[in-house]
Amino acid sequence: MDEQTRQQFDSIFHPQSIAVVGASGDERKMGTVFLRNLLDSGFEGRVYAVDRVGGSFRGLPIYPKVSSIPAPSVDYVIVAVPRGSVLDLLDDCLVKKVKAVHFFTAGFSESGEEEGIRLEQEMVNKARKGGFRIIGPNSVGIGSPRANIWLVDFQEGAGMVSFMCQSGSLMYKAVYNANSSGLCFGKLVSVGNGCDLDSTDYLEYFAVDPETELIGAYIEGVRDGRRFFQAVKEISKKKPIVIWKGGKTEAGARAAASHTGALAASESVWSAALKQSGAIQVEGMDELTDTLLAFQRLSFLEARRITIVSGLADGGGGESVSAADVCISSGLELPSFDSGTISQLVALLGRVGSILHNPLDVCQARSMEIVQRAIEAAAADPNIDLVLIQERVDLLLSMLPPGSLNQICDMFLAIKRSQRKPVAIVLERGFAQTEWLAAVRKLSAAQIPVFPTLDRAVKAIANVNRYSSYRRVI
Amino acid sequence: MDEQTRQQFDSIFHPQSIAVVGASGDERKMGTVFLRNLLDSGFEGRVYAVDRVGGSFRGLPIYPKVSSIPAPSVDYVIVAVPRGSVLDLLDDCLVKKVKAVHFFTAGFSESGEEEGIRLEQEMVNKARKGGFRIIGPNSVGIGSPRANIWLVDFQEGAGMVSFMCQSGSLMYKAVYNANSSGLCFGKLVSVGNGCDLDSTDYLEYFAVDPETELIGAYIEGVRDGRRFFQAVKEISKKKPIVIWKGGKTEAGARAAASHTGALAASESVWSAALKQSGAIQVEGMDELTDTLLAFQRLSFLEARRITIVSGLADGGGGESVSAADVCISSGLELPSFDSGTISQLVALLGRVGSILHNPLDVCQARSMEIVQRAIEAAAADPNIDLVLIQERVDLLLSMLPPGSLNQICDMFLAIKRSQRKPVAIVLERGFAQTEWLAAVRKLSAAQIPVFPTLDRAVKAIANVNRYSSYRRVI
Repeated sequence: MDEQTRQQFDSIFHPQSIAVVGASGDERKMGTVFLRNLLDSGFEGRVYAVDRVGGSFRGLPIYPKVSSIPAPSVDYVIVAVPRGSVLDLLDDCLVKKVKAVHFFTAGFSESGEEEGIRLEQEMVNKARKGGFRIIGPNSVGIGSPRANIWLVDFQEGAGMVSFMCQSGSLMYKAVYNANSSGLCFGKLVSVGNGCDLDSTDYLEYFAVDPETELIGAYIEGVRDGRRFFQAVKEISKKKPIVIWKGGKTEAGARAAASHTGALAASESVWSAALKQSGAIQVEGMDELTDTLLAFQRLSFLEARRITIVSGLADGGGGESVSAADVCISSGLELPSFDSGTISQLVALLGRVGSILHNPLDVCQARSMEIVQRAIEAAAADPNIDLVLIQERVDLLLSMLPPGSLNQICDMFLAIKRSQRKPVAIVLERGFAQTEWLAAVRKLSAAQIPVFPTLDRAVKAIANVNRYSSYRRVI
Repeated sequence: MDEQTRQQFDSIFHPQSIAVVGASGDERKMGTVFLRNLLDSGFEGRVYAVDRVGGSFRGLPIYPKVSSIPAPSVDYVIVAVPRGSVLDLLDDCLVKKVKAVHFFTAGFSESGEEEGIRLEQEMVNKARKGGFRIIGPNSVGIGSPRANIWLVDFQEGAGMVSFMCQSGSLMYKAVYNANSSGLCFGKLVSVGNGCDLDSTDYLEYFAVDPETELIGAYIEGVRDGRRFFQAVKEISKKKPIVIWKGGKTEAGARAAASHTGALAASESVWSAALKQSGAIQVEGMDELTDTLLAFQRLSFLEARRITIVSGLADGGGGESVSAADVCISSGLELPSFDSGTISQLVALLGRVGSILHNPLDVCQARSMEIVQRAIEAAAADPNIDLVLIQERVDLLLSMLPPGSLNQICDMFLAIKRSQRKPVAIVLERGFAQTEWLAAVRKLSAAQIPVFPTLDRAVKAIANVNRYSSYRRVI
């Protein structure tokens, strides 16, 4: 990526000033919602409201046009007005030396109509001639926590995970997942129709962006397949790219065409090409964010031989059986403990009512200290690379004295400190949302990845393993 | 099933009196937890606490032995004391003409130890000789909402769904899932080692039980495969049986052996035999409870051609693409609308920014009334059998005025009333737990099935279709 393009991207994610066109003050309209979210998220640059209604919103004057803004320049313009006025608007933007324009406005190539396709092409022509870039159209825009820009939803903190999404609603879902897991995004973008900047452009930027260590992508289709796969192949050598491809079936591809105008190749072509490119292929938003979380917390990791521990609150027998199934199907191993470990476990837990294999059930432990020692014994087993502890918050709360959940989290932190093997936790939420979220935050703060179900944990850890092996051999 | 056995089962699920052995008053011990839950769930029969400590718990005297209970008989005894004392205890139970004994106590055949195996065999001998039945050992017992018996967790109301589970912790999870979806159990049992009454016995009882219309089962292995599959085959002709088989991989089977002593056959043998038997095979507890919910709400149904509607709060484009993929992979169809429907949709929604295919995106509708008319137009399409509407509660709440969620639920109810095709709803929970649960309950009360994700809804509906076709052809 050339230096000029990189700078254009930097201004997109770190603009000095933003104007929102279509911010009439009516909070049922997306223009006003964007403006409100921008003000609420604490963006420190200048913010301008633009709409022909005039008046003001939360103390900000509403200017009739972008060119009426009393400043020599505006970096970034968000557009949420009907498509009929967009060409005039772009001419008006040129007056203010705008660097990038994000169109929430839809009704372009994705509509399949001639008029929409023509308009989109003219927008691109104006952008090329005027030297500015277009995000969208038909996009919910960007999230840039370091710049305090959130158009869609909020998240505390800013991490090193960047996310490129060919769907606005799935971008919301990604942020929701991040908020409930400790995954921390640094940059997000909804590509929309990608008429100027397309998926490959964003990926290439994330590849050179020092604020990005991990990349996630939801993709329905790309314009130039060769260029896309070449880019993914190059990037995968340096940074993990986790990709969910939507629109795999014929009906899905048809929906994708109306959604973002993307032309999708057949599933087998995509899967084969992604595999060769070194990307980590996932199926669904949950697996996507789980895998990013696993990378964020565990970094690169070849740790296939895991032990699963459960039974702090209840006998985790049934869960262990399905856990074992999921592990093996995902390419992980659940080795038997060696005889030294089993002797230690028998001494700690006794034989009766405990399951002293791997998966390990510690339900017979008589104190938290014994639970900790049993888990440490399992972790120390020479056949084990990683410890996965599984509990349900509802049950912990209903079966143990008040305060136990906090005590259990402290024990998990102690286990992480007391030995060198990686630790991951499965905490099922149940109805105890507040306590669950507090526990997730506490464990996340200590860099322990927390997953909502065992299946999801195992798939994510297997994905990290797969990529780590790939990186070792290329 | 002979009449005598049926009556024994009736006394298990509708006992007149229950004694809990090991109910010392110490709430950290399961005996006391069982007693407490029994008292809290409002069981109307007589309840006795038994433990050698004596004293009292919540006003109930604690008798030293079952035989010290001052009543001529006790129907049902729950045992949560170490295994060493169980044989004497059973002799003591005979004095009170006990009909069934549930052993939470573990350390029998599942331990693999000679002593445990021998003890279990002796328990069975005593039961056969004494004419009473054993639940477990190594079981968390039963749930019988019509009798107000809950040992593990609570649920409001009593339905026609019975559940047999070879895992205590997964039984908790099933009840949790039911509580968050409107699925309504009528009878539940944790089989444990099933030394006397085993999985097949429970299934045979559910088959003849007039309070059971649907059967769910989590199974790790069975003693007599031929008898089990023969039973499933017979029952499937009359009632749907939804089965999740755990312990499919070698590691899973090993875990299952230590968990309930079950001997598991290979995965391929199980899958083939289940398929031939007419059972509905699922993978995981979520798919199990989702499928039961779909049966409970939709009954038998051949409705493969579905329309998916989204976009009330946000443009559901990306979700629609993956929705289409999931439908097709599950064997459902997403037919195109016919031209009459498309004309109606264009008139209602306009072309721009809407996706007027199937999946349908109604994000451009200007009022709730127009949303309703658009969904009804899609439902009326001659190519469509079932309407699936997908929304996220978080987004609805953040993007629409207060009170909208309730209004939207009312609209869903109106759509169900206004036309004859079945309606199912996907409501993603997000962080708005209270509002989400209220909406689920409101829709459930109107017999609309509500699922937490589109994938899960589609799989459950596909399972109902599959069984309904099976019933039509056998």
